[in-house]
Parts: sequence; structure tokens; C-alpha cells
Amino acid sequence: MQITRPTLIIDEAKCRRNIAAMAHKASNSNSELIPHFKTHQSKEVGAWFKDYGVNKITVSSVEMAEFFADDGWDDIYIAFPCNPLEVERINRLAEKITLTVLFSNVAVIEKIASQLRNDVNARIEIDTGADRTGFKATSFNEIEEAIALIHDAERIHLVGFYSHAGQSYSARNKKEIHTVFDDMKGQLLSLHQKYKLPISCGDTPCCSVASHFDEFDSIHPGNFVFYDVMQAQIGSCSFDEIGVVLAAPVVDKNELSKEIVVHGGGVHLSKEGIKKEGVIIYGSVVKLTNDGWGVPIEDCYVKALSQEHGIIKVSTKEYAEIEIGDVIGILPIHSCLTADCMGAYYDLAGIKKNHLKHS
Amino acid sequence: MQITRPTLIIDEAKCRRNIAAMAHKASNSNSELIPHFKTHQSKEVGAWFKDYGVNKITVSSVEMAEFFADDGWDDIYIAFPCNPLEVERINRLAEKITLTVLFSNVAVIEKIASQLRNDVNARIEIDTGADRTGFKATSFNEIEEAIALIHDAERIHLVGFYSHAGQSYSARNKKEIHTVFDDMKGQLLSLHQKYKLPISCGDTPCCSVASHFDEFDSIHPGNFVFYDVMQAQIGSCSFDEIGVVLAAPVVDKNELSKEIVVHGGGVHLSKEGIKKEGVIIYGSVVKLTNDGWGVPIEDCYVKALSQEHGIIKVSTKEYAEIEIGDVIGILPIHSCLTADCMGAYYDLAGIKKNHLKHS
Repeated sequence: MQITRPTLIIDEAKCRRNIAAMAHKASNSNSELIPHFKTHQSKEVGAWFKDYGVNKITVSSVEMAEFFADDGWDDIYIAFPCNPLEVERINRLAEKITLTVLFSNVAVIEKIASQLRNDVNARIEIDTGADRTGFKATSFNEIEEAIALIHDAERIHLVGFYSHAGQSYSARNKKEIHTVFDDMKGQLLSLHQKYKLPISCGDTPCCSVASHFDEFDSIHPGNFVFYDVMQAQIGSCSFDEIGVVLAAPVVDKNELSKEIVVHGGGVHLSKEGIKKEGVIIYGSVVKLTNDGWGVPIEDCYVKALSQEHGIIKVSTKEYAEIEIGDVIGILPIHSCLTADCMGAYYDLAGIKKNHLKHS
Repeated sequence: MQITRPTLIIDEAKCRRNIAAMAHKASNSNSELIPHFKTHQSKEVGAWFKDYGVNKITVSSVEMAEFFADDGWDDIYIAFPCNPLEVERINRLAEKITLTVLFSNVAVIEKIASQLRNDVNARIEIDTGADRTGFKATSFNEIEEAIALIHDAERIHLVGFYSHAGQSYSARNKKEIHTVFDDMKGQLLSLHQKYKLPISCGDTPCCSVASHFDEFDSIHPGNFVFYDVMQAQIGSCSFDEIGVVLAAPVVDKNELSKEIVVHGGGVHLSKEGIKKEGVIIYGSVVKLTNDGWGVPIEDCYVKALSQEHGIIKVSTKEYAEIEIGDVIGILPIHSCLTADCMGAYYDLAGIKKNHLKHS
């Protein structure tokens, strides 16, 4: 494939290895992998998961559930706080597939219980430390109110507790992730014992480092299919497990600052940055090869992004070697957002895979 | 229009006032407004500009040039460093429209001069302080080499110098923007006097505060059609001139932290943030009304974004008033990126306008 403009490249073999490893670990724990498809948002990439025993999926919006239901997935969990304004679309989806929604508060259950025309499953969201959405694990009165409301609702069937331990994104090594995982598991287990309901969890860092999921009915990681620089920094993966790269043409060089400029900006990578050794970086630089790409080149990183420009800080050695007209690889900081910006992938054979945004 | 999910709303009257003001100022200066269409990337929004005498446009990629050429625009300037890998697409475009490219270095002129089959115009990019791309205004040897190469190239016609004074984005009031503008103008004027070539500039902050453009052949701002929170903070506009807002449904409330959670995350707003009073914010909160939206509510802002979630810090008063199931408005930090994420607009009458990404 001849690359002439910013192009998102996907290494199917790496992605399949990531899927296989997670599916194997779940299966060994007698836990179900219900992968989150918000990362790839692609029917073609989604199909790969079927080869590893996956037949239920997780998504983060009603629109995404409609997209994958249209592709034949018939058991979908929307792991985003149920939006009462979308009840009509939920009804239409629940008419044709097994739909599971997430309740993060009592107000929504009250609002939609009487408006449901078709049966839905529901999980109750538990905030185990992410401080984003859901019931605190010790808010027993509210949790019991939610359980009672669901019990009274004719069309809603409670299937368990769910927590996305997003606080794992603050970890910077496997030990710190294990601490988050153990704490989250402890909180959910005490609810499990108290209310005799199954428990489930979601985040990629915890699911990547946990040795088993014996206590969990299901796990719902998403990012692990691709991984990214942020996950490598957290400790979820190694750089050679990252399955996507942005190929970006070099369009200018700045001799004074030893920077190179690529076509590849905020509309391609997203503006997600992470702090590395005190500096915010927006991507790691790799060399593209005939069969994929290498590991990050030392001292080379995306220093700044404008809409279409990427400014790459490179070493003196790389500055001399990289020419205008070359194409370099940039490992994304957050692959979910980069995929969402790009809206399509090309595999190493040059075959296009579409993303929801460009479908 | 009933809003049930994240929706980008556009106020045509505000946008038209922004266009009219810029067109009027350019016309008074006998300078040509060649607006940058990278902000809206919409054929429908682009058509509004024709009512203000605009018949040439600026874009930031070959793909965008193709998109607008397809819509009948026949004089397009690609204000992004010419990418030698795209010469075939440039040739095809130059066959049917008047195409102007931007040269930011000597290497690209050398690479493509012999590959052009159709005539193109060219501007030479001058880096007046943005430290991104282009020749330093005092790099006379290189500038003269570029001029000579263009002169020798059969198919390239030099039409002037161009500078995007991106350093204006560091300004925090009109006075600071004026300083940037005057410095940029001074640098370009000295080149104009030395080489007898027209000069042009681009950035929205400078174009917004400058009282006239008498010395400039053309101006190429883009963001001004919508403006955004960043431009208001820089000093380019007032909040009531901002022409787009993200409508976001409230899906959860957190009593302890006095935060509300909306469906509206990094895939909707982009992850662009700005520092305000020491805190990074990702959007300003407004109330939606029957005929548009209000100005930012004091002490309310988007505190954090994940892929689909927006976490809004609100005052105690607002916390009590905002309910799950409400829809609130978020003024984007950087409207170009939000528009690129959303891929479509709805005007106040509910009529959809498409963006390149969803076309």
C-alpha cells in the first residue's frame, strides 16, 4: 500500500493475539469476556472476536448498539448511564435483540420503568473509586432503592453489579494496577455477598494485569484489542503489543529546533496527551517496515498538534535520517480516540476496515 | 427539534454576523477575504460566505480541496505545507480549478516542480514566530533559493508570502494580539519591500482585532465563523459571538462532588482544554433556550472528559436546578475540532448541515 496522507494502520495479528490472551484468561476463570467495542467501532474488526468464542458485546452508546445490532450481534450491553431521553430507541432495540442497560442512579429507573415496551436486562453501576458515575459501594439505601425499583418494574431484569474502575488510569506500574483491581474486587464482592447478585468489571488496565477473574461473572475491557502509549505507560501492555499506528507523511523540517513536521494533527490523533518525564507528549514515533512497525524510537515524540500539523521532536541522528516525503509511524496516546478521529483502518495488506463514524 | 443525544447546534445568524464583520473589514482595506474552510468543513455553511462577496477559499488538506471543488468552488488555496506524496491529486485538482499551494521549504519545490502537469499558484510560507513551518523572515538565502526555483518551474506561479501567526494563540487580551499582529506585519512588509511580492496572513486572533489590512493582499482566517471559548479567552471575540454549541443530555448527578455527568465526551468535544484560573477546562456551560443559548454560567465548566462522558462542575445553585433528563449546552474550547468530531450540525430550526467527515 502506498501511503500519501494520514492513514491508520492496523496489525491484525497483534490484535488477534491481544484478543486471544484476554479470551483465554476469561475462559480459564469461567468468566465471560463481553468485550467493549467502543475502541474499534468496526464491524470488520468486531468479526475477529467471534473466533475466540465471543458472542455478546459491550458498547457505550445507543447509536453504537444500533450499529452492531445491524451487523447481527444480538446480545448487547450499553455500559453508559441509561439516558432517559433515548427510551424510544431502547424500545426499538430491545424488540429485536437481548439488550442490557446500565443504571447509575435511581432517577432514571423511575423515569423509564413505565415507558419500556420490551424486556431489558440491567446492571447497577457501582463507583468503586473512579468518581465518575454510579452508586458508591456503601450507599446501601440507594442501592436497595434501585434494586426494589427494578424488581417492581415489569420489563427490567436485574443481572448484576458493574464497575468501571477508571482510577486504574492513574496507575504507573502493574503493582499499582493490582492495588486498584483488588480494591474494586473487594467492594464488589461485599455487594455480591450482601445482595446475591453477579458482579462484572470493565477497565483494560485491571483486566490486563489480573491473573484471573474467578469472582466475576463477566469482564468488559475494550482498549486491549489495540492498546496504546497510555496503556503502555500505565503498565497494561508492552509497546510491541500495540496494534494500531498512524502513518504520517513528513512535510517540513526545522533545522534550528531539530523538529520535523508531519501531516497528522489533532483531527487525526485526537488531542489526548500524557505526561512523560515532565513533558506532555501526543504520540510516540516508530519506523514503518514492510511487515508493520518497530518499537518507539528513543527521544522522539509528538511535541505538539494543531488541526492538521504534528510537530515531532527527534534526536539529531533521526533528524539527519528523516527526509521530507518520508512516512513515519505514530503510536497513539489513546487508540479509542484516534480510531474515532480517523474513521477507518487499513490492514497491512491495504484492505480497508470501516469505523462507525464513516459508515 | 427534540434533542436526545449529543448534538452540535449552529446559530446561523451569529455565524453570518461574524462573516459579515470580517468581510466588511477586508473590503474596507481593499484586501481580499479568502476564508479558511477547515473550521466548518461544510458545503452548506460554506455557501453562506457567497452572500458576502467570497469566491475564493482556503483549506488545510488536498482532501478538503477536493471536497469543496466538488461543490463548485473553483479557486482554492491549500494553506498546509505542500506534501510531495500528493502530487498526483494536486495535478488532478489543478486540471479543473485554480489551485494555490504553499511551499514551506526548498526540498518540496525541488521534488514536485518537474512532476506538475498543470499550472498552480504558490505562496511561500514565512514563519513569523509560530515556530511551526516555513522560512524564517530573515532566511534570505533560502527564501531567494525558493523564489528562484519557483521562477524556473514552468508550472508554478508565485503569488506572494503567507504567514499564519499562530503565536497569537498565546495572547490573553487584545493588546497582546495587536503586538503579535504588528510584529508579523513588520516582518512580512520588509519581505514585501525587498522582493516586491504581495503578502497574506491567516490567524483568527490577528484578523479579529486588526482595525485594517491595508498592507495585505488577502486574509485567510477560519475559526472566526464560529469562534469558541479559546478565542474568547485570547481576546478575539466575546462569548455572545460564539456560533456553535454542543447540546448534551444530563445522565447522572454526583451529590458529594456537586458534579453532573452528560453524554458528551472526548469523541464529541475533542480533548482540547485550556487553563482558566489555574484549572484545565474542556468547555463552558450555557443554558439552551428556545432561540439559541445564553452566555456561560458562572462557576460552571467541563472538568473532565472520557470517551462518551463529560463531567461538569456546577455551582450549588445550578446543581439543584439541573435534572437528569435535561439537556445543557457546552461551548467548545476549539470549535474546529468539535465540528470535526461531530461531523454534522443542526441549525436552530433543526435542519442538518453536513461536515466533510460525514459526507
